[in-house]
Amino acid sequence: MATRKSSLKIIPLGGLGEIGKNITAFEYGNSIIVVDCGLAFPEDEMLGIDLVIPDVSYLKKNVEKIKGIILTHGHEDHIGALPYVLKEISVPIYGTRLTIGLVENKLKEHNMLKSIERHCVSAGDTIELGPFKVELIRINHSIADSVALAIHTPLGIIIHSGDFKVDYHPINGEPIDLQRFAVLGSRGVLALLSDSTNAERKGYNMSERTVGNVFEDIFSEAVHHRIMVATFASNVDRVQQIINAAYKYKRKVVFIGRSMINVVKTAAELGYLDIPRNTLIELSEINKYNDEELVVIMTGSQGEPMAALSRIASSELRQLELKPGDKIILSASPIPGNEKTISKVINELFRKGADVIYEDAHVSGHAFQEELKLLYSLVKPKYFIPVHGEYRHLKHHAELVMNLGMPKENIFILSNGDVLEFTKNTCKITGTVPSGQILVDGLGVGDVGNIVLRDRKHLSQDGLLVVVITLDRESNKVIAGPDIISRGFVYVRESENLMDEARNVVKNSLTECEDKQITEWAQMKSIIKDTLKEFLWQKTKRSPMILPIIVEV
Amino acid sequence: MATRKSSLKIIPLGGLGEIGKNITAFEYGNSIIVVDCGLAFPEDEMLGIDLVIPDVSYLKKNVEKIKGIILTHGHEDHIGALPYVLKEISVPIYGTRLTIGLVENKLKEHNMLKSIERHCVSAGDTIELGPFKVELIRINHSIADSVALAIHTPLGIIIHSGDFKVDYHPINGEPIDLQRFAVLGSRGVLALLSDSTNAERKGYNMSERTVGNVFEDIFSEAVHHRIMVATFASNVDRVQQIINAAYKYKRKVVFIGRSMINVVKTAAELGYLDIPRNTLIELSEINKYNDEELVVIMTGSQGEPMAALSRIASSELRQLELKPGDKIILSASPIPGNEKTISKVINELFRKGADVIYEDAHVSGHAFQEELKLLYSLVKPKYFIPVHGEYRHLKHHAELVMNLGMPKENIFILSNGDVLEFTKNTCKITGTVPSGQILVDGLGVGDVGNIVLRDRKHLSQDGLLVVVITLDRESNKVIAGPDIISRGFVYVRESENLMDEARNVVKNSLTECEDKQITEWAQMKSIIKDTLKEFLWQKTKRSPMILPIIVEV
Repeated sequence: MATRKSSLKIIPLGGLGEIGKNITAFEYGNSIIVVDCGLAFPEDEMLGIDLVIPDVSYLKKNVEKIKGIILTHGHEDHIGALPYVLKEISVPIYGTRLTIGLVENKLKEHNMLKSIERHCVSAGDTIELGPFKVELIRINHSIADSVALAIHTPLGIIIHSGDFKVDYHPINGEPIDLQRFAVLGSRGVLALLSDSTNAERKGYNMSERTVGNVFEDIFSEAVHHRIMVATFASNVDRVQQIINAAYKYKRKVVFIGRSMINVVKTAAELGYLDIPRNTLIELSEINKYNDEELVVIMTGSQGEPMAALSRIASSELRQLELKPGDKIILSASPIPGNEKTISKVINELFRKGADVIYEDAHVSGHAFQEELKLLYSLVKPKYFIPVHGEYRHLKHHAELVMNLGMPKENIFILSNGDVLEFTKNTCKITGTVPSGQILVDGLGVGDVGNIVLRDRKHLSQDGLLVVVITLDRESNKVIAGPDIISRGFVYVRESENLMDEARNVVKNSLTECEDKQITEWAQMKSIIKDTLKEFLWQKTKRSPMILPIIVEV
Repeated sequence: MATRKSSLKIIPLGGLGEIGKNITAFEYGNSIIVVDCGLAFPEDEMLGIDLVIPDVSYLKKNVEKIKGIILTHGHEDHIGALPYVLKEISVPIYGTRLTIGLVENKLKEHNMLKSIERHCVSAGDTIELGPFKVELIRINHSIADSVALAIHTPLGIIIHSGDFKVDYHPINGEPIDLQRFAVLGSRGVLALLSDSTNAERKGYNMSERTVGNVFEDIFSEAVHHRIMVATFASNVDRVQQIINAAYKYKRKVVFIGRSMINVVKTAAELGYLDIPRNTLIELSEINKYNDEELVVIMTGSQGEPMAALSRIASSELRQLELKPGDKIILSASPIPGNEKTISKVINELFRKGADVIYEDAHVSGHAFQEELKLLYSLVKPKYFIPVHGEYRHLKHHAELVMNLGMPKENIFILSNGDVLEFTKNTCKITGTVPSGQILVDGLGVGDVGNIVLRDRKHLSQDGLLVVVITLDRESNKVIAGPDIISRGFVYVRESENLMDEARNVVKNSLTECEDKQITEWAQMKSIIKDTLKEFLWQKTKRSPMILPIIVEV
């Protein structure tokens, strides 16, 4: 129970010191609410991993306290971990209509649609969850129906910006509700948690509408050619602008890519996307139309090898073959780490004669420095907590508000798992709870850890050698082998000598063991491993994984 | 022998459609000269590969024709393959003093210093090689002593820009010799091969000297702190500017990083680096000085995990521990593909309290669009061949000169291996020669090919399972096993059930083989592989490599 002495805790379980897997718990007395539940994409060194979700053991342990999960918007880094986390803690979820629509697509795939309680709410609504009153405030972002949260608690108001930008004339819906932030600010806000993604970018971000103007220019010029646009499936407003341009220039629209088709379907059903009649056609129909009558909207703007754009670039999409003059617009910026993959696709498109446009056809969904200052200045919180970003972003965001007069000691650059505790007059980090990365690989959630990853890394660098020896149980004599099988080490047909020599090295090790009367398998294996490793390093300067296997008959 | 009818051939063996491994052959009659001999860094999918060198089988086949290799400058992508290529074709090399100095460091490491004939030449010199007169023309680049080449041939002058930029007040040596390009141009130039690296960047590049001004600002402000600068070892002029600022502000200089120390030593010995007396100190001495008396110059600006900057960020360099307030300047731009690695290092440095500066402290060494237009306009060649770049760069460079009036049919976007043949009145692609990538992994040159890489990729994604079965030679009955060993697949201690089930699956397969009287090993292995693969996919949605091994006793 909440008592007069109860404190308020903010516990980020993800999204701090990283881009992705955003999730934050707010705790007061016996009540917890959770904001967002996102996934992250694997780092390069997480070989074979499909996605990364937050460690929610703190929530599992306190599941009876949890009143619900409130979602700020429908991006993967805010909703993507839900199917996994909801398997562990089955609690109600709250979000705007498009957000819940996208979550439902996910729950359907995981066969969880029946078991999870869902509530659609709107900007302006307030949700009562135990001692918390959570008010949804309209903001702008690169997906429609995004909100910030004002969490009214017994100790004061906490504002969580969600992911936001300031757009005075958004495509769908209203501009960010700056007044509401100001009104709450004037009443006194205890703390502001604010999006740091673009805290290093100077000036103001541009309106989504400016991208529409770029489309307009391209469409008006490309009078004889097909136009293809690759963008993020979830950027419904971007898709709307492409459709608008297509309609104006009397072109039919084809969607390609599973996630594009899914999101468009959901968004159109819910009324977030306005597709004029007789505009959509199927991919199979494109040959019925002339080039100047077609617009293709597709996935793959990050160069993902299995997505539409890459498959078109490498001529793998049977129904759509590139031809010289095709205008291809990359309406997205590279997410850090994808630069090279995207560049390869661009080269391939150019090589096939297409005209590729990859500048000016995108704006970011996150506030730049001047917008961050604006939100801060409207809210004027007592405490400031930069969220959503790598350490460099959090740090720059902190410096930004320090320059606006915020005292350093009232700014908290938190790490995942930190417990930031507020009492009536204080605010400090009072502890930590478990947090971290749970790796998802195929159906396995959390079964791939450091040892498996270390082995994958080792195997990826120099391959492996399996050494099989069969011993007689009685005499302990070698009765078959050593046989050596390698993969990913050298091209064996051209390295027969090396393999023969390696076999001799193992034979010598076995003789040595016999001479020294070593019969302990572990010891024998270790001797074989060490001598073989040394031999191979001298011969090749490579260190394959060596797997000695002893069979007894 | 050259006859009146001889044609001139330009044969790029690397550097076209890629960044790196620049090498081009020029052939006339019975004579070949080669320009540059560089390496490339491995692509992400080339797991475990150290570096990539060009396929020079065409040169090996025609080794008796080769008069020499002329080097434009001392960067790895222009000289890095020399130790490997010179083992195949031992021919004389020509280059400016710093270039030859850096090559000698390499040859020494490969024990080849005695066997290779080397010639130091200077900008302004002309080298006579058979029917070719190769004139060296001063240009500017991010390494001192870089040159372009005017190759005077019986069919006309070919200009090869090397890597260049226009710098009117370089740190060391003279500005680019624009007059000479213009004089040759006015006499008539058959073809221009020009650097396309920055063909997508608008405007003019900045002078190297502007970076000095940035250093100056930082040094004048950081009066109480240590200053550390990470940059490319080969950028001698950059290092000079840091030394100049250090000297002015009475700071001692420490170099960290093997390649930094090597290049600085060579450059100082040859007079390309001017280090005032009593400026250099050893790393072991830094504790004798106050923070404000120190500048550290080091490698690692690309986030390379084994280089100085990363090691300092992760507290692995015992002699130098970071402290709050340390000013760290990243004087380099990320090479595409390194963005994330660099960002990790930056985050780590910030986390340790350092102040990291990574904007404005670098300029590129390659000409921007307006400089490319300038060179083209001075030379006014009959034919134009964009070189050094991915397809997108070559394509943009071609468009640039088309906009200056060059007819499309006189521009050749070549691929590696193309033979571009000039006769008195014609120029066309008349054939191809072998070209491609030779992968270097440890001591192995070319022994890692597609099969090995495919296996490494497979192993890296889902690991492997080894299945060992021992059969009796006479009865063909299983007398030991199946034993299953896995690596990089699942954490075995937590997956004992799965492994037990997998063993049963193999047992069933063996029973099936027995029932169907299948005794052919290949067939048995294939059945085991297929059923196990199917089973594991159903259970885990992963596809580890499966290695069935049958031992007979």
